[in-house]
Amino acid sequence: MKFKIEHTDKETSARAGILELAHGMVKTPVFMPVGTQATVKTLTPDELVDVDAEIILANTYHLYLRPGHELIEQLGGIHRFASWRRPVLTDSGGYQVFSLTDLNKVKQEGVYFRSHLDGSYHTFTPEYVIRIQRSLGSDIMMVLDECLPYPSTENQVRDSIKLTLQWAERSLREYHQTSPLYGHDQTLFAIVQGGSYEALRRESASALTELEFPGYAIGGLSVGEPKQIMYDMTSICTAILPVEKPRYLMGVGKPEDLIQGIENGIDMFDCVMPTRNGRKGAVFTHQGMTILKNAGNKDDDSSIDPECDCYTCRNFSKAYLRHLFKAEEILGMRLASLHNLYFYIQLMKTARSAILANRFKEFKNDFFSRYEIQKHVKN
Amino acid sequence: MKFKIEHTDKETSARAGILELAHGMVKTPVFMPVGTQATVKTLTPDELVDVDAEIILANTYHLYLRPGHELIEQLGGIHRFASWRRPVLTDSGGYQVFSLTDLNKVKQEGVYFRSHLDGSYHTFTPEYVIRIQRSLGSDIMMVLDECLPYPSTENQVRDSIKLTLQWAERSLREYHQTSPLYGHDQTLFAIVQGGSYEALRRESASALTELEFPGYAIGGLSVGEPKQIMYDMTSICTAILPVEKPRYLMGVGKPEDLIQGIENGIDMFDCVMPTRNGRKGAVFTHQGMTILKNAGNKDDDSSIDPECDCYTCRNFSKAYLRHLFKAEEILGMRLASLHNLYFYIQLMKTARSAILANRFKEFKNDFFSRYEIQKHVKN
Repeated sequence: MKFKIEHTDKETSARAGILELAHGMVKTPVFMPVGTQATVKTLTPDELVDVDAEIILANTYHLYLRPGHELIEQLGGIHRFASWRRPVLTDSGGYQVFSLTDLNKVKQEGVYFRSHLDGSYHTFTPEYVIRIQRSLGSDIMMVLDECLPYPSTENQVRDSIKLTLQWAERSLREYHQTSPLYGHDQTLFAIVQGGSYEALRRESASALTELEFPGYAIGGLSVGEPKQIMYDMTSICTAILPVEKPRYLMGVGKPEDLIQGIENGIDMFDCVMPTRNGRKGAVFTHQGMTILKNAGNKDDDSSIDPECDCYTCRNFSKAYLRHLFKAEEILGMRLASLHNLYFYIQLMKTARSAILANRFKEFKNDFFSRYEIQKHVKN
Repeated sequence: MKFKIEHTDKETSARAGILELAHGMVKTPVFMPVGTQATVKTLTPDELVDVDAEIILANTYHLYLRPGHELIEQLGGIHRFASWRRPVLTDSGGYQVFSLTDLNKVKQEGVYFRSHLDGSYHTFTPEYVIRIQRSLGSDIMMVLDECLPYPSTENQVRDSIKLTLQWAERSLREYHQTSPLYGHDQTLFAIVQGGSYEALRRESASALTELEFPGYAIGGLSVGEPKQIMYDMTSICTAILPVEKPRYLMGVGKPEDLIQGIENGIDMFDCVMPTRNGRKGAVFTHQGMTILKNAGNKDDDSSIDPECDCYTCRNFSKAYLRHLFKAEEILGMRLASLHNLYFYIQLMKTARSAILANRFKEFKNDFFSRYEIQKHVKN
């Protein structure tokens, strides 16, 4: 992996970079569509290329359980399995183990959990999670981390970041002691934790920085804490993390959160929001979010967003899309997901151009002057 | 509409023709994908063009109820509404009124029924159904017919074909007394009924032939009767229907039924089978139908059908498709639907080439020598 910062905005910490991965170049800031089960929900690889997704996410926990990483290895790795030729980042599964399973127990060695699918018992150690990701063959692997709920006490979080740090060291060791299986390089990112405690965020970021990972993620945010805490924690971390390495804000978020993250020096984002909202008929426009099923769209012959030239907006009216959702037709979910991803990815491109032109603030102000933030929609 | 028979096979009644409709040429024999609610389930118009669907079906009953034909008229007709530029045939809704509603009452004037969606009361008369189809703007409209269940008594069927004949006359009158709304021609097909009674099929076909409709459909088959009855009734009808006009076997069917229909002089088919089966993970191959979820596909790196070059078969293994169905991912439904439609349409193309080369029998024998017919799968 190589990461080159092309330009940093003069007024903010926003940066435009290029991430060179085994399966291609990724221009940052980048939004990574989420393909949990080795498919970005409802969409084909061709459509992802059409909306210019340069990298997608897949999930270690889900793929380990189903279809199993051994099977994916047998079939030549995740790129071949899912017929996706561009880069893939695999989450470590830490977040899922702590959020999806009704039974999990953390020990020094690793985490014991029951599958949310069939209740079977499993263990993830930092080493095993690296080996699973070797089987998957992702371009970017993530370390196993402990993810505490929000809120957690300072003592809980202090203990937790120590464990996450130890796991990160073990992950890095395993990373160096194992080799890629498919002839292409894989890189490894650490994950900064620390809850909503500034000192602990600093401690976690500093300690992980010393380990000299190729890249860094900020985890444990966008889990229910107030927005301002998320923004503050992000900037605290990015102030410490090495400036020349990529930074990834995990699981974030809404368009406004992405813009805020970029301003704070974040390079990479992922979130289920564009696809999950799309499947429910909630679509993004430059004016804010719109619900396609709303009666107001009944005879609306215009497209979702007049400024958008995605396949959906070039071909279909809101009236037709509303009909598809009312009639529970899958095509509606597809077209809305496609539009939302296009919206997110275009937003990143526009932000990037603004950074290169030293006018990120102007871009941000322009965006917020028109975009109505949904206060009551859960992230 | 113009219909030209290019060639009739020397040994059978199979014909290769060209149907010239307002929105384009259709090479027959043709399979028409079913887009009941103005969307061929799970697929985009672009994908339908990719699999070379030359005409699709939409349903008057469903579109009348939701979103309403007035709305579709207001939005410029079904082609514009659904962003589909090729021909559309609309079913009259007769079949749905009799099969989907739990309450319907037939009178001379028309049929009274309750919506399967909300229980509201409605009336379809032959004239109204023509006017609805004028609103929709389909290239081919169908007359309202009475569809009896199988089995029905001879007396019931005798009364029914009289009514269907009267309705056909009224439909034709309404057709001549109304004009297209969007500047393109619409044509009208009659529907032969007669249940499984040879004499009544002959009577219905003869009487409708005298009315000189532009085209003819054979209805009331593939409704639970033995296969042989369907084949016999088809050939009885095609022997009477004018040779120079297109013939459409409604709601049929499985690949083997299409081949049998072509041999008996049928030009057009429609069926939900390729898309409905596809959504359930049942896919067609030259060896017969395969269930993608089957354990045998778990680590099968090969495509659904090595002879197929559809998007699905060019890009995805059965192992991946099985994973998608096991994980209940919509992409699985899409890819299987796409493959099945491609299979059906390619089958029609191959049949057509065989007819043009006077070797339809050879094609048929070749097909059946390899294709294992599923005896216990409901059509």
